Amino acid sequence: MTDLAKGDRTHARILDEAVELASINGLGALTIGPLAERLGLSKSGLFAHFRSKEALQVETLDRVAARFRDFVTEPVRTEPDKTRRLAVFFERWIAWLDRSGLSGGCPILAAAIEFDDVPGPVRDAAARHFGELHRLIVRFARAARPHGDVDAIAASVSGLAMSHLVRMRLLGEHRARAVTMRAFGALLAGA
Amino acid sequence: MTDLAKGDRTHARILDEAVELASINGLGALTIGPLAERLGLSKSGLFAHFRSKEALQVETLDRVAARFRDFVTEPVRTEPDKTRRLAVFFERWIAWLDRSGLSGGCPILAAAIEFDDVPGPVRDAAARHFGELHRLIVRFARAARPHGDVDAIAASVSGLAMSHLVRMRLLGEHRARAVTMRAFGALLAGA
Repeated sequence: MTDLAKGDRTHARILDEAVELASINGLGALTIGPLAERLGLSKSGLFAHFRSKEALQVETLDRVAARFRDFVTEPVRTEPDKTRRLAVFFERWIAWLDRSGLSGGCPILAAAIEFDDVPGPVRDAAARHFGELHRLIVRFARAARPHGDVDAIAASVSGLAMSHLVRMRLLGEHRARAVTMRAFGALLAGA
Repeated sequence: MTDLAKGDRTHARILDEAVELASINGLGALTIGPLAERLGLSKSGLFAHFRSKEALQVETLDRVAARFRDFVTEPVRTEPDKTRRLAVFFERWIAWLDRSGLSGGCPILAAAIEFDDVPGPVRDAAARHFGELHRLIVRFARAARPHGDVDAIAASVSGLAMSHLVRMRLLGEHRARAVTMRAFGALLAGA
């Protein structure tokens, strides 16, 4: 293996651990010291990969977004019936929140709320990823309901995913998934 | 003024500042040191009021919840038509998120997502307040739609408030409020 390839592999390993930590404690608590300790690396070694805490946090969000695309967005593109893509997307999104392989919640959703008032690169990254997600939902909503109020549908759909997360993870509501899917069905039927 | 009353007043002043800080940086970033500095008090002085960071965070959440009750919940009780209470509540909730006097977002919503994976007293307090809010919405939904799927309505309503927060504060969507209110109208019409 070349040194470059080895460096890339280490970089990826650090980011995977960073995603895991961020999903549990939130992105704000993700700093270079504790992450280095967890990985058994030196702080200076980690600094060679990420020049700052902010750069680490931004790359961690980008990594989560890439995983989200693989797990949620890409499979939706294979659905041939465009009017069904919103429903397939939502089902994948809830599956992502329930069992994406992350121990904690979705770091992008968490960052969207944690960093909304903290100007800087992390907020910008959260806004970029969340904005992209929102535009995607609007597009799927337009295909599902060409004559519907697509902005209102998109607002309700993304909200339902957030409320699912809180009812499932914080309130421990056993029927969270069933209730969420019924609410989604009602939302589409009424739209 | 008695010493006791003076102590109470200081306690309240500390909590108001803590609410403000938590609304901007999140509850996780609320620690005794920076808060003492901001208030021009000694750390040991602050420790006399709150024995730990967790106790400070829990009391801060309780304070936010009390303000939420004053601003959102209490006015709803004066609405004589019980079927209208869900709509009045939602309108107050959105007003709270838009201009509650807090510089940042709602610390209870933020804590609900930030602390869902961190067992301890702060998570317990967030779950208690959020659970109470959720049961209240279910009650209003039952009055508004006695034959409707009240759990699904409550899930959609609380989600819509969360999505409003993100669209308004993070994405800076100018029409956020208008879209949110249209989505709420569609939700009730379809329920």
